[in-house]
Amino acid sequence: MKILIVGGTGTIGKFVAEKLKSNHEVIIASKSNGDYLVDITSPDRIEQMYKDIPNIDAVISTTGASHFGQLSDLTPELNDIAINSKLKGQVNLVLIGQHYINDSGSFTLTTGIMMDDPILRGSSAAMANGAVASFVKSAAIELNRNIRINTVSPNVLEESLGKYGVFFKGFNPVSANKVANAFVKSVEGAQTGQVYKVY
Amino acid sequence: MKILIVGGTGTIGKFVAEKLKSNHEVIIASKSNGDYLVDITSPDRIEQMYKDIPNIDAVISTTGASHFGQLSDLTPELNDIAINSKLKGQVNLVLIGQHYINDSGSFTLTTGIMMDDPILRGSSAAMANGAVASFVKSAAIELNRNIRINTVSPNVLEESLGKYGVFFKGFNPVSANKVANAFVKSVEGAQTGQVYKVY
Ligand SMILES: NC(=O)c1ccc[n+]([C@@H]2O[C@H](COP(=O)([O-])OP(=O)(O)OC[C@H]3O[C@@H](n4cnc5c(N)ncnc54)[C@H](OP(=O)(O)O)[C@@H]3O)[C@@H](O)[C@H]2O)c1
Ligand SMILES: NC(=O)c1ccc[n+]([C@@H]2O[C@H](COP(=O)([O-])OP(=O)(O)OC[C@H]3O[C@@H](n4cnc5c(N)ncnc54)[C@H](OP(=O)(O)O)[C@@H]3O)[C@@H](O)[C@H]2O)c1
Repeated sequence: MKILIVGGTGTIGKFVAEKLKSNHEVIIASKSNGDYLVDITSPDRIEQMYKDIPNIDAVISTTGASHFGQLSDLTPELNDIAINSKLKGQVNLVLIGQHYINDSGSFTLTTGIMMDDPILRGSSAAMANGAVASFVKSAAIELNRNIRINTVSPNVLEESLGKYGVFFKGFNPVSANKVANAFVKSVEGAQTGQVYKVY
Repeated sequence: MKILIVGGTGTIGKFVAEKLKSNHEVIIASKSNGDYLVDITSPDRIEQMYKDIPNIDAVISTTGASHFGQLSDLTPELNDIAINSKLKGQVNLVLIGQHYINDSGSFTLTTGIMMDDPILRGSSAAMANGAVASFVKSAAIELNRNIRINTVSPNVLEESLGKYGVFFKGFNPVSANKVANAFVKSVEGAQTGQVYKVY
């Protein structure tokens, strides 16, 4: 398969790429690095990417920014970071990509445990995760040409404890290896509309 | 209590207002009608509303527009209708209102069954509903001054079958009376972070 990993240079994306590249043609896209540069906050750049990289079988998104901070400091403007990136960025990869991806292709987006098991300072990311999860369940019943869609919702990664551990006290971190397997299951399996919870 | 119902002129909002107004001071806000005019797609107008209506004990939102249509026709621009209204409009009522509402006040937002039980043409609304539900669960653990937050997720209303029945074939419609009770429970009870599913 020809697999595009948007955010493939990041912590999760790198592990997903590693698992897939022995059997597949893997193309890494990211904002500042990788085989192709794209900013998912721009629908025009997303459309251009699909024009530049034809015949994709699987689109994986392991990206999406959000503002972490106390709810009392969360302004509509700061909340827009998650809306424009983690939410609209990922959803637009699907809305635009549905017209370009190959028959029987798949989309796999990334959400996260905070939508189910909230943490302090995480309301904006939780909101975006919940949006993506419900979108995936709903889009799955409408995608044409046997195109599938799933999302992987990871717990905090062992590999990210240095960065995020302080937010996730008492959570049981999971390995990037286990999280990456969920992406492989989504791409190589036949399920659709699933929220793979790697908790 | 002094209760503000944004969308209080609509199908659901009217029933909620009816149930609350015998015991409470109820103020109805809507875009084109009601005691106060507000457009929830504008953060500035929301802020002005809270300045114009001080000392609110409970904010109820029974509003939020979304585009209904096939996924294959859903563009990023059409998807913005739900993002700007149902999602950001409702979330911004909380982000801005948390600084104005009285101690021990409450927010009650509206979501809907499509986030759990998807229907054709409903991906954009499902997305917004999922965002609001996850935001509510997360914001509940951070709101200060004993402020609470819940959301009511109604099935299709018996009273709306004329308008929406064709989208909800095989669903079991619920009465506006039952849906309105969930709002009363949210306002007059003590729970927080709940998604009241009236299915
Ligand atoms: N790490 C965890 O423990 C964990 C747990 C649960 C959920 N998640 C979620 O998983 C996703 C990835 O997390 P991560 O830790 O792997 O992130 P990361 O290491 O920060 O990597 C993010 C990746 O996304 C790319 N990117 C950022 N903004 C972009 C944009 N606007 N357009 C295109 N690409 C963009 C980055 O590329 P550049 O470097 O070129 O900008 C990078 O490749 C996030 O949504 C995160 O919330 C992470
Ligand atoms: N009806 C159902 O069966 C059902 C089931 C599940 C969920 N829901 C959800 O419940 C909510 C309300 O549904 P409904 O059927 O009661 O809707 P409705 O009858 O269309 O009423 C909508 C209300 O919101 C107001 N409004 C619309 N846009 C606004 C804006 N930008 N700013 C401020 N107010 C605005 C309207 O005021 P104006 O008339 O002045 O514009 C009206 O008061 C929606 O989110 C809907 O998705 C409905």
